[in-house]
Amino acid sequence: MDYDDDIITELTIQECWDALRDEEFGRLAYRIGEDVNIAPINYAVDGDTLLFMTAEGSKLLGVVMNPGVAFEIDRIDAELAQSVVVRGQARLLEEDEAHRAENVALRPWIDTLKYNVVEIVPEGLTGRRFNLNEPRPGARRDS
Amino acid sequence: MDYDDDIITELTIQECWDALRDEEFGRLAYRIGEDVNIAPINYAVDGDTLLFMTAEGSKLLGVVMNPGVAFEIDRIDAELAQSVVVRGQARLLEEDEAHRAENVALRPWIDTLKYNVVEIVPEGLTGRRFNLNEPRPGARRDS
Repeated sequence: MDYDDDIITELTIQECWDALRDEEFGRLAYRIGEDVNIAPINYAVDGDTLLFMTAEGSKLLGVVMNPGVAFEIDRIDAELAQSVVVRGQARLLEEDEAHRAENVALRPWIDTLKYNVVEIVPEGLTGRRFNLNEPRPGARRDS
Repeated sequence: MDYDDDIITELTIQECWDALRDEEFGRLAYRIGEDVNIAPINYAVDGDTLLFMTAEGSKLLGVVMNPGVAFEIDRIDAELAQSVVVRGQARLLEEDEAHRAENVALRPWIDTLKYNVVEIVPEGLTGRRFNLNEPRPGARRDS
């Protein structure tokens, strides 16, 4: 570890899943050939997987060619910063599985149709909570 | 493009830089061998580069071994979501350059010393603003 225990708290797996279920917006890191890319996505938890929708494009091509992805959510307030990182394998769902997206609160940012549903099966889940040493700009410190 | 012009607006390079200067927190996507990883970082704009600090660890190892990185910031409110993605080359600054971190508002989340200053030289800068089709939970729609 880089840091003292009282500054950084490692989240439990349960806390990571709770945070993932509370959020709907994160960032997907994926490879395109030798390059790495990152894109904001809306997602939803479905069982012990994550689902997101995407149109044809580099995200879809990336995860089909290189299924190993990383995904992150975070939250910052005056006192705490928290980040959860999922590393896992992405897979384009077949037509007969894509209905899974209808059973979860998977809302695209925009109305434009997004045809492809991608599942991320987590292989590693890590979360950290940082006790910030000063309040963020514009945030009120209560203590 | 995947979407209609009235739903997604591409930001100009100037707007991307303005957004990068307004923010101090983002996510770095980098490679560790064949894997991709993602980590939250504090950063600052220094001229036409980004700087961040990191202790010894996977982020540092990753960017030294695979300098090609991607970096993202975003912001969401009731009506708009905006994301800026930087793709570029990361480089560990030499001791005689590391003072650059002292001249910018580069604040680590925590007090623990972070010895290494890394520079990202952008090669590509893209930004998008999404007109959201419904308000986010907890956010008020004014129109």
